[in-house]
Amino acid sequence: MTIYIINPNSSRVVTDGIDRAMEPLRTASPVPIAAIQIDEGPKGIETQAHVDGVVNPLLARAAGLEGDASAFVVACFSDPGLAALREQSQRPVLGIAESAVLTAMTMGQRFGIFSILSRSVPRHMRMLGAMGVMDRLAADLPLELGVADLTDRNRTFARLREVGTQLRDAHGAEVLILGCAGMTSYRADLSEALGRPVIEPCEAAAAMAIGRVALARAYHQTKG
Amino acid sequence: MTIYIINPNSSRVVTDGIDRAMEPLRTASPVPIAAIQIDEGPKGIETQAHVDGVVNPLLARAAGLEGDASAFVVACFSDPGLAALREQSQRPVLGIAESAVLTAMTMGQRFGIFSILSRSVPRHMRMLGAMGVMDRLAADLPLELGVADLTDRNRTFARLREVGTQLRDAHGAEVLILGCAGMTSYRADLSEALGRPVIEPCEAAAAMAIGRVALARAYHQTKG
Amino acid sequence: MTIYIINPNSSRVVTDGIDRAMEPLRTASPVPIAAIQIDEGPKGIETQAHVDGVVNPLLARAAGLEGDASAFVVACFSDPGLAALREQSQRPVLGIAESAVLTAMTMGQRFGIFSILSRSVPRHMRMLGAMGVMDRLAADLPLELGVADLTDRNRTFARLREVGTQLRDAHGAEVLILGCAGMTSYRADLSEALGRPVIEPCEAAAAMAIGRVALARAYHQTKG
Amino acid sequence: MTIYIINPNSSRVVTDGIDRAMEPLRTASPVPIAAIQIDEGPKGIETQAHVDGVVNPLLARAAGLEGDASAFVVACFSDPGLAALREQSQRPVLGIAESAVLTAMTMGQRFGIFSILSRSVPRHMRMLGAMGVMDRLAADLPLELGVADLTDRNRTFARLREVGTQLRDAHGAEVLILGCAGMTSYRADLSEALGRPVIEPCEAAAAMAIGRVALARAYHQTKG
Amino acid sequence: MTIYIINPNSSRVVTDGIDRAMEPLRTASPVPIAAIQIDEGPKGIETQAHVDGVVNPLLARAAGLEGDASAFVVACFSDPGLAALREQSQRPVLGIAESAVLTAMTMGQRFGIFSILSRSVPRHMRMLGAMGVMDRLAADLPLELGVADLTDRNRTFARLREVGTQLRDAHGAEVLILGCAGMTSYRADLSEALGRPVIEPCEAAAAMAIGRVALARAYHQTKG
Amino acid sequence: MTIYIINPNSSRVVTDGIDRAMEPLRTASPVPIAAIQIDEGPKGIETQAHVDGVVNPLLARAAGLEGDASAFVVACFSDPGLAALREQSQRPVLGIAESAVLTAMTMGQRFGIFSILSRSVPRHMRMLGAMGVMDRLAADLPLELGVADLTDRNRTFARLREVGTQLRDAHGAEVLILGCAGMTSYRADLSEALGRPVIEPCEAAAAMAIGRVALARAYHQTKG
Repeated sequence: MTIYIINPNSSRVVTDGIDRAMEPLRTASPVPIAAIQIDEGPKGIETQAHVDGVVNPLLARAAGLEGDASAFVVACFSDPGLAALREQSQRPVLGIAESAVLTAMTMGQRFGIFSILSRSVPRHMRMLGAMGVMDRLAADLPLELGVADLTDRNRTFARLREVGTQLRDAHGAEVLILGCAGMTSYRADLSEALGRPVIEPCEAAAAMAIGRVALARAYHQTKG
Repeated sequence: MTIYIINPNSSRVVTDGIDRAMEPLRTASPVPIAAIQIDEGPKGIETQAHVDGVVNPLLARAAGLEGDASAFVVACFSDPGLAALREQSQRPVLGIAESAVLTAMTMGQRFGIFSILSRSVPRHMRMLGAMGVMDRLAADLPLELGVADLTDRNRTFARLREVGTQLRDAHGAEVLILGCAGMTSYRADLSEALGRPVIEPCEAAAAMAIGRVALARAYHQTKG
Repeated sequence: MTIYIINPNSSRVVTDGIDRAMEPLRTASPVPIAAIQIDEGPKGIETQAHVDGVVNPLLARAAGLEGDASAFVVACFSDPGLAALREQSQRPVLGIAESAVLTAMTMGQRFGIFSILSRSVPRHMRMLGAMGVMDRLAADLPLELGVADLTDRNRTFARLREVGTQLRDAHGAEVLILGCAGMTSYRADLSEALGRPVIEPCEAAAAMAIGRVALARAYHQTKG
Repeated sequence: MTIYIINPNSSRVVTDGIDRAMEPLRTASPVPIAAIQIDEGPKGIETQAHVDGVVNPLLARAAGLEGDASAFVVACFSDPGLAALREQSQRPVLGIAESAVLTAMTMGQRFGIFSILSRSVPRHMRMLGAMGVMDRLAADLPLELGVADLTDRNRTFARLREVGTQLRDAHGAEVLILGCAGMTSYRADLSEALGRPVIEPCEAAAAMAIGRVALARAYHQTKG
Repeated sequence: MTIYIINPNSSRVVTDGIDRAMEPLRTASPVPIAAIQIDEGPKGIETQAHVDGVVNPLLARAAGLEGDASAFVVACFSDPGLAALREQSQRPVLGIAESAVLTAMTMGQRFGIFSILSRSVPRHMRMLGAMGVMDRLAADLPLELGVADLTDRNRTFARLREVGTQLRDAHGAEVLILGCAGMTSYRADLSEALGRPVIEPCEAAAAMAIGRVALARAYHQTKG
Repeated sequence: MTIYIINPNSSRVVTDGIDRAMEPLRTASPVPIAAIQIDEGPKGIETQAHVDGVVNPLLARAAGLEGDASAFVVACFSDPGLAALREQSQRPVLGIAESAVLTAMTMGQRFGIFSILSRSVPRHMRMLGAMGVMDRLAADLPLELGVADLTDRNRTFARLREVGTQLRDAHGAEVLILGCAGMTSYRADLSEALGRPVIEPCEAAAAMAIGRVALARAYHQTKG
């Protein structure tokens, strides 16, 4: 049995990055954790059409893994197919955005979100509205980083620090959420620079999945 | 130029029913209104997987009609692809659920929703949450009507009346929304029986689309 | 039958401006659109006392037009008498503020409002609270323009652009609403300058009224 | 200086009832409390048109009393003219509905409201929405008592008890609010019968006004 | 019978300050007002542990005064023990934070809060969330004043003025609340400097308590 | 290192029950799980005074275990001392009520809560309000079971089934939460009887704590 972290895009670099980020969590997990990807998915999830369009192949892939899965994690901050996969699967299903928000809710009263681009913000707002947690949001601010910027580690970190300072000081965020799946390597330094917890959503979701695998054992044992 | 009402399922009976329901609205519309369907869609939209899965063909179909379209209406009460089509198209895009809710908000302080089955209710709740209008909801109650029941007109009407009475009297709904696309023929009688306005969502969305076509003229004229 | 746009103040200049703004919408309307005014109303609606005080003459005027009306639009951004006129009339009744907000809700997740003066803002907040849509508000910012400023077209536009930039960038508004009835002539240029849709509330309400006239035909036909 | 309780209708019976209800509060008030009425008002406030229509004479009456007033209380559960009178007057201005709700918020987590007729309920919902306190509402249930019923004391009490039991047991109300101005005489017995605090709104508002008169002294003294 | 203002910390300076602030209110109160303190309490309430830890001695002290009390006011802006004291006592129980908020809700649509330090802000957010009034909050901004700053009257006032200007202009606060118990002496000047009402929470709560003592007389008289 | 489940009451029976409930979770936990109790606590947490009063000894006990703790779980459905312990400790701190709610939010759109007695319900409402998740609540219904009833297993289960049916059918709850710490043994049967997931809060919190221990490893590793 395995916890499957499903990267819904088809970028091997992203999938490998998620896989590496899982390494420390594996030592605490009762089951293996595997990062996989949807080869039919787009190179990156950038539009609502990408979000909706990847659901079918994601469901098909998960269906094939159902018998072997302890839990599923959808590893894109728009949580594509989360509701659909919950209807389809008997396993615990977690999304990285939802998990990051729920985890943040135990670490501070108001959370801030870093979005790569401003066009993702309304998508996040719809998600937070559907979750019913808008009162816990400090702000969701875009980094407005293009592809070129993102390859420059110093520039990206400087911008994260700048926006994070604004989330903390102008908007009162006590805890910060990285609003995309590929920024694990900045988490620790950013948290130290800002003096606030920073949540990387893949880690948060994998951690919740580990908890759910434990919970499932309680359920089966009491039933059996 | 045409207002396209896109039935995202592949049922000719449903599409024809929507087409007939548009007849009286056509006399007041400055452009033709055409009901079309997605042949790649499922027979009926019953699960979240259906909702998400139909988005790709729906976007493709709408892309092909873009040059010819005055406005698009997505004609399924789960509003599949609404956000994605808005990102893709330059035309006004309306969903029948959203339009029904916005129309209801001008007819009473709290609206009630009839759902065919209880399993649609959480999907509606997520949508109303994302819309940020939960405080205007009186209740969303399931009819729990199976296929056999739905073909029996008397049984269906009796159940609509019973649930509508509950929405009105126990939950304080001043206006009622039919939570699926195929019940136009009950609207007038139900409204009379309950003494409250009843909104049929395809009609409400087509009416809003007619308004938007008019609005677009104001926009072009002042720009030109 | 006619759609009556009722300017609740007694300023002929304002009424004529509304009338001109209706011109392009008329070509798409199945019925005439007439802008009228309340001669007993104040020169401008500036206080809550003005809002409440104009309701009686507005109701009287509308009562006299009931037999001839397809729909009523109350054309002041405080929507004076909206609830009262809905109780009195059998026709569709729309307010320009409510219509602008509902229209904005289909164009973006969060809307911003331009208010002429800061003292209108709490009135708008009460209205948005009563509508139950506070979570969709990005911000409502005052232009703080006096009468002298408003006659200077360049100064007014510069201020609209400045405040609009703030609504968009600092508050995340995706769509913007002009919070008074007399700024139609800025709409197109402002929208272009900001790269976001800008809603002029009289146009938005008239468009919704056209849709409602169409909807009413569906209702009568299915009843008859 | 006097606390003026302004009954916005022209019913002497109602005004006298309010006046009698003030008797015990007078012994604790630092200033006289006078119940007056608006002779131009309707016999009873039953529609939104009544609510809006009474604002002008109410403002005029209050303006004449401004120099002599310690505070104003608007004594109708729709709080007509509350915002307008606050803009006009330098004195504390309280509405009986608002005061009852704020008082209830210190006596229990969720409050229930008794409305005379169901048609008042949407008016109350708009008010509670504008106050931003919908999450504290258990339910607002109509007594549906006609004029004949209201003259029958036993029938009225039986119905209050029945609806109050429903508010408490089916909706979880910990504290109950009488949603009109003329039911003071039932308050004590109803509270005992239900085992829950029952708030009569004129009393609650007069009590808050007494507090405000005390507060104003602190303000003047520290300024002087 | 006496209104007891209970300072839950053990600072005589604070208690004496509250006592002096009550002086003008006493002339309008039907019963004496006494400021007392909890000698077992900390020197100042600065952490959530202080808030929770002081509840037991506060309840014990109030129990001893029950027979002699007209009302209790808990005089710390975190309202420690408010719910517990309400369960224990038969008297009206008010907290200064809750009272300040409820009073502010009658003076403007959105209120701003001055917090001494940013670490109090999440505590306030939890309280406002539990009160269900988040939509009425403009912002809660920290002064970030240390002990040294607070002893410098000019520096404190300058910072209050600066933060108050921000609450008013950048966040739209119409009314301002001093978010701690020891700033009475700044209230009048700050209100004048900002041109907005400023609420000192001990005064606001004592005023509400005076109202409640008056209300209790109405209750006893109608019962007897 | 150990996950400490702290029962804040002094009942050995309750602590032992929690300990047994942890058994299956232990097989999936990377660290030991120990259930301890607060000997200075009351026999049961029944009032707000109990909730607040137990915080001091709970903090003291946790302080003594800090060096040895992987995480803390506060095992009482009122989550006493949750915010205070988070301020004091460097470890992950979870409350069973908060954890149950967050877990439920991943299993259905609206959750229902079983309370033992109606007097706990307002306490829960304040907590859910502070969490900002009121829109996700279907209902919180009391079992109204006395001590005698609770010792009768059949009577308790029958009542759980009856109230659970009401939560599911009349209030639309998709997932149900046992609102106290001692009902683990009913969970599996109740879930089967109702056809809905039932969350036992100690299990849910322990599962989340296991996830957090895993997450902490990711944090330390990336920092080191």
